[in-house]
Amino acid sequence: MAETPVSSSSPFPPKNPRFREAVTESFSRQAFMATLGASLALVEPGEVHIAVPFSPSLTQQNGFLHAGVVTSVADSACGYAAFTLAPPETDVLAVEFKINLLAPARSPRFLACATVLRPGRTLTVCEAKVYGILADGARELVASMLSTIITRQVNKAS
Amino acid sequence: MAETPVSSSSPFPPKNPRFREAVTESFSRQAFMATLGASLALVEPGEVHIAVPFSPSLTQQNGFLHAGVVTSVADSACGYAAFTLAPPETDVLAVEFKINLLAPARSPRFLACATVLRPGRTLTVCEAKVYGILADGARELVASMLSTIITRQVNKAS
Amino acid sequence: MAETPVSSSSPFPPKNPRFREAVTESFSRQAFMATLGASLALVEPGEVHIAVPFSPSLTQQNGFLHAGVVTSVADSACGYAAFTLAPPETDVLAVEFKINLLAPARSPRFLACATVLRPGRTLTVCEAKVYGILADGARELVASMLSTIITRQVNKAS
Amino acid sequence: MAETPVSSSSPFPPKNPRFREAVTESFSRQAFMATLGASLALVEPGEVHIAVPFSPSLTQQNGFLHAGVVTSVADSACGYAAFTLAPPETDVLAVEFKINLLAPARSPRFLACATVLRPGRTLTVCEAKVYGILADGARELVASMLSTIITRQVNKAS
Repeated sequence: MAETPVSSSSPFPPKNPRFREAVTESFSRQAFMATLGASLALVEPGEVHIAVPFSPSLTQQNGFLHAGVVTSVADSACGYAAFTLAPPETDVLAVEFKINLLAPARSPRFLACATVLRPGRTLTVCEAKVYGILADGARELVASMLSTIITRQVNKAS
Repeated sequence: MAETPVSSSSPFPPKNPRFREAVTESFSRQAFMATLGASLALVEPGEVHIAVPFSPSLTQQNGFLHAGVVTSVADSACGYAAFTLAPPETDVLAVEFKINLLAPARSPRFLACATVLRPGRTLTVCEAKVYGILADGARELVASMLSTIITRQVNKAS
Repeated sequence: MAETPVSSSSPFPPKNPRFREAVTESFSRQAFMATLGASLALVEPGEVHIAVPFSPSLTQQNGFLHAGVVTSVADSACGYAAFTLAPPETDVLAVEFKINLLAPARSPRFLACATVLRPGRTLTVCEAKVYGILADGARELVASMLSTIITRQVNKAS
Repeated sequence: MAETPVSSSSPFPPKNPRFREAVTESFSRQAFMATLGASLALVEPGEVHIAVPFSPSLTQQNGFLHAGVVTSVADSACGYAAFTLAPPETDVLAVEFKINLLAPARSPRFLACATVLRPGRTLTVCEAKVYGILADGARELVASMLSTIITRQVNKAS
């Protein structure tokens, strides 16, 4: 992810000029994302996409991607979408989320696309759509998430 | 899990006398549960517990268990709690769930305990609590989930 | 609401050619909507808007619209958005929903705008945004809902 | 509600010795609760019950209590359960909630029973069950809610 300039159409100005580095560095410490084979696909102010390929090691009883995997990448995408708008020296944690699973997750690849609905000093609300990406590039909506994220000072006791 | 008799105090009678085998067999096909190192800890009518040990491969950016892992075992526990009450020749799928993450997941072991709130022919609603299990056996509430599960005939087109 | 032709751009074709009458008739039987002063503002295939004016009788402790009112109109809007796509001789019921309250509800008027994310024979998933409508017509996002609705045959025992 | 001593079995000690007065006073300012005919039925540390009688003015299209009414009393019960544990000079606001509607709401009276799952300085998580109370006093579980509440200093700008 090159340090491309932020689109002037962004509705939410980032407070951390190095937000892309901050997201990338934090994502690299999420060992679980590596376990899933997930990678950052887009990092813009208020928007983060995470891609994950289908793998037999990530399936439920019918051979589809487990809802927990779909949820995990959507959760991380929401957290990092919030993080793009957070000030330096902070961290983000998911407070809660809700997800509707809309179709069986049987595509070769999936993309969780999270956007900030309302940024806040303490709480940020994000939504995410997870798409199955078919071989021809067509997208199928697989899940929809609504999530609340809290921003905290780093090194501050909980 | 031996074929122990069903407790007479169970509020919901199972419709499948071999529900324990059905749950165990389906769980064994959830490759993602093996990837997480998760195992069935209890299977009773309307109640299922799933255990998962902490692992560095399952962490988020601060070294705690990723919310997606906590959610994944809670989701499977809810699905299988519903499945204990389903008739033979059916399968269950999560329609949606919501989870609140209540404390950092930093215990050596976690237990997701799901119970059926309302069984139904089509839809079953479950709740789950996820506990961190400390070295001395003490429990700390880590997350609370509310989930809707659909029961479907096997081999029936969606 | 005149019987205007359905927009050809609608992603979901209605199964009931008299869906507008069906929605309007059902809404008129929701006594609670009259109690709130709410009215249908738009009925299109897969999309329903409900308007509600601010009233001192609908407030919480700080004089803002109670979250329950915001939620009630969003819930009805989601249910009727699903109902626009339901076959004749059916009814809809909310299975569950989740709502994030994003800003204090202190506008003179509110509009709940629901759309269908995924229609289904049994379950339909909708999302709704609730906007505060300011005196100059500007909109402020007040709440976001994600809802699951079940479609049932009329007169069918539950 | 007399100033009865707090049960020694309460898991969460209140920080405001006058929490009952604070809850009662705030509830009396929720005009919407009066519009619904709702009343406080129990106020204990970490637990609040709100009762609402069935009324034809509160119904949905089939003559049952509207899901929005069930939700409104559950939401207020959760907010006030959190408020029982809040310090003096604070107020509470619902951040979000999710509710599952488990049975048609056709009893003569309903009781929303909210308890605190996890109290926090900033965020408190509550769950509520709503019961239909039958003529013979029997209870039927009608809905289950999971809610996040934020505690704020009074007179502090948002």
